[in-house]
Amino acid sequence: MFLKVREMQWLAGRPIAILHAKTAERLNVHVDERVQVRKKQRGIIAVIDTASGLLGENEIFLSQEVISYLNLKKNDFVEIELTSKPRSVDIIKKKLNFGILNKEEIKIVIKDIVSNALTEAEIAYFVSAVYSCGMSIQETIDMTESIVETGRKLNFKGVVVDKHSIGGLAGNRTTPIVVSICAAAGLTMPKTSSRAITTAAGTADVVEVLADVEFSIKELQEIVKAAGACLAWGGSLGLAPADDKIIQVERLLHLDPEPQLLASIMAKKISANSSHVLIDIPYGENAKVNFQKAEDLKKKFELIAKHFHIKVKCLLTDGSKPIGRGIGPVLEMRDILSVLGQEEDRPIDLEEKSLILATEIFNLVGKKNSRMLAEKILKSGKALEKFKEIIIMQKGNFSKKLIPGRNKTVIKADKAGEIAYNNKKVNLLARTAGCPVDKSAGLYLHKSGNEKVEKGEKIMTIYTESAYRLKEAINFYRKNEVVKIL
Amino acid sequence: MFLKVREMQWLAGRPIAILHAKTAERLNVHVDERVQVRKKQRGIIAVIDTASGLLGENEIFLSQEVISYLNLKKNDFVEIELTSKPRSVDIIKKKLNFGILNKEEIKIVIKDIVSNALTEAEIAYFVSAVYSCGMSIQETIDMTESIVETGRKLNFKGVVVDKHSIGGLAGNRTTPIVVSICAAAGLTMPKTSSRAITTAAGTADVVEVLADVEFSIKELQEIVKAAGACLAWGGSLGLAPADDKIIQVERLLHLDPEPQLLASIMAKKISANSSHVLIDIPYGENAKVNFQKAEDLKKKFELIAKHFHIKVKCLLTDGSKPIGRGIGPVLEMRDILSVLGQEEDRPIDLEEKSLILATEIFNLVGKKNSRMLAEKILKSGKALEKFKEIIIMQKGNFSKKLIPGRNKTVIKADKAGEIAYNNKKVNLLARTAGCPVDKSAGLYLHKSGNEKVEKGEKIMTIYTESAYRLKEAINFYRKNEVVKIL
Repeated sequence: MFLKVREMQWLAGRPIAILHAKTAERLNVHVDERVQVRKKQRGIIAVIDTASGLLGENEIFLSQEVISYLNLKKNDFVEIELTSKPRSVDIIKKKLNFGILNKEEIKIVIKDIVSNALTEAEIAYFVSAVYSCGMSIQETIDMTESIVETGRKLNFKGVVVDKHSIGGLAGNRTTPIVVSICAAAGLTMPKTSSRAITTAAGTADVVEVLADVEFSIKELQEIVKAAGACLAWGGSLGLAPADDKIIQVERLLHLDPEPQLLASIMAKKISANSSHVLIDIPYGENAKVNFQKAEDLKKKFELIAKHFHIKVKCLLTDGSKPIGRGIGPVLEMRDILSVLGQEEDRPIDLEEKSLILATEIFNLVGKKNSRMLAEKILKSGKALEKFKEIIIMQKGNFSKKLIPGRNKTVIKADKAGEIAYNNKKVNLLARTAGCPVDKSAGLYLHKSGNEKVEKGEKIMTIYTESAYRLKEAINFYRKNEVVKIL
Repeated sequence: MFLKVREMQWLAGRPIAILHAKTAERLNVHVDERVQVRKKQRGIIAVIDTASGLLGENEIFLSQEVISYLNLKKNDFVEIELTSKPRSVDIIKKKLNFGILNKEEIKIVIKDIVSNALTEAEIAYFVSAVYSCGMSIQETIDMTESIVETGRKLNFKGVVVDKHSIGGLAGNRTTPIVVSICAAAGLTMPKTSSRAITTAAGTADVVEVLADVEFSIKELQEIVKAAGACLAWGGSLGLAPADDKIIQVERLLHLDPEPQLLASIMAKKISANSSHVLIDIPYGENAKVNFQKAEDLKKKFELIAKHFHIKVKCLLTDGSKPIGRGIGPVLEMRDILSVLGQEEDRPIDLEEKSLILATEIFNLVGKKNSRMLAEKILKSGKALEKFKEIIIMQKGNFSKKLIPGRNKTVIKADKAGEIAYNNKKVNLLARTAGCPVDKSAGLYLHKSGNEKVEKGEKIMTIYTESAYRLKEAINFYRKNEVVKIL
């Protein structure tokens, strides 16, 4: 059946088609079932809503997600076909019953996720199955491979380095600094990052404060050819579209199941054709993982990397406290610029960690005097120069003022003692203030973890654009032990 | 902020609000976040979509789910308020980590489900957490209580009987027969049933072939006052609105986690003020449960019933093969009428099972000569008379022709032997044909389970309204061992 496209620039967060109730009846499809929407050879699966007003029986409303995918214009005609229940449904159920999935089964699920054959609720079932029932190393390898197969690839050759942090640590924005140091040393580093899942900001959220992060593969390759590196968002490249959709659903519950985390990271490295990868695993109380879990992750990363012939080094780092002063996109970018610019009041913990990571990457590719080299590049201003080069290649703008949210409140110490941040709650506080969507929201830590504080001294400032969210954030701060004074 | 309601009779399957993109920006809300939509004192939480076409900045599109709940008319104004992340999110995560939830936590989740504070994907997380990580008896009791608390109640007094089947068995449509026998014996039996979750049809789907099943509590109480019984759909009464929403999400994966099943059944009995309840637990290969699981369920039902002071008897019955000839709403109703009408070719297995269940209910309330009494009522035509009385009270129509789907195909035996049905696959075959939404879809079993068949003899006929679904059903039949000839 052919229907005429009616448009209303409707963003639904997923592909949805509104049919006239009579048309749906004629097709024998019902609300929440799926249909295939086709334009010539290209097709996408959409979930059905129905309506009786505002559209005719031979018309269809399509959410922007469908319009963009099929490249539709107003008054175009699309073909609607029935589609049967995806095979994934039984496979997901098998995993919910603690079953072991084979390569073929995992491939079916990942393909269905990419082709949009699964609703968000069905993807949630898959995520929670993986979360609660786990996956073997073989399943994780198979999932990694399926994610790579359903995505695009970058075609850099030779030594291609990368770094990755498993995340969870507030502030920990070393990537732009490390990438700048490595690229300044002549290494190829096509860094793609994610947006935040459980923290206040991901590297992509932070870089976006100054520059574009969404590029086509062709654009990205040009950036890297010119600057030796990039700081792009992975999602727009389509390297791991399955993973991008899964992350969208994980976000609802701030979940990050281990096999998914492993597959997600490794798939992106494989698609980027990385040869040498450094993985930062912050561990500790209130970090994403404890020491034992960190050791376990390290072992698994090494096993998977070996399977795919990638040289990996996992670094277990202190994850007990936030790193840097700023938490949230704008505030973290200010920290980055002060380290790269070697300003006097730069956060030394952020600088030191960046140097350690850059040193390890140099070691990994066999450079001599690695630590000295890294320090020299940073202190000489070469890293800052390289960072500017990357930002400009990414259509960035340095004259942009980095101003935190207009609504703010200062938290002061109610007694003297030593500061102890709860990492998870610091992240949640920043998210309550609006991070990462509200770029200027976040926290400025006047005091670092373990630092001494006097009664009445400032501990942190909360920033946000929204007066409502400020109230919520203050509320959250009152109800939760975000910071203890010991 | 107040916005003017624009209507298009839009059924989205869930409460959704489309805001103008600029309005969303002004409110600082984003696609997939939630807002509270208010009309005077009444409010409902809706998920945000945005659009830039077809609506003005001071207008809002609301899905029918919101319009009905708030009783809105065109050009009404609604108030939009921001709402924070529901507390349930952390509680669900706790359960996904195999945590034990306390009464307060369970209540928060159930309340958030009822008030629509959770999206389908978040409810899916809860369902899978309960499915994979389980619940203790205490948690199940607490969930039962929360479901009851968030729902309405029926106020029948004295001896109120009920029966329930845990389901899973194709055809097994004893309820209308048992209710008719019991009510004809003078018992009060306000039977509310669900629609199908994993099978081809639920009792509500089947009764709906002849009569209305959706009533207000007031209407239902009038029906029961007049006829002594009813055969209504539980969903429209709002006895267990949390459960209704959970079932909608379970349906996606055909899941039915045990604690949810226990709480769902018991909550409805408590809300209906039932004093004596018979629970039918069909067990066997390809039934919902095996013998061990059936014994386990029986024990749990008894524990929960004791807590709520309800007299329960659990009956473990043969669940190895379909019961009756028809599978699917119209075809099952034909079976029911032939048993009640004592027609010569009536399905004897369906009659016998109905008599056993009615007998057990009579025993439960202390009637003498129970089996004889049940038989007498059925054979004398009194049960049929009572059934007609109920159907007429439910605005039913007996002159309605019960015609199975126009597209059909006959499956014949490719060799001689003994028939063995795979229950689950029989259900899936009927669902592929369009059950339960397509009332006239389904199967007619020319041969029962264990019956002998000659080569070339008819085994079953598949019926459906949709030519497409017939193709799918034949395809399903070919690929799956729905029936074996031993």
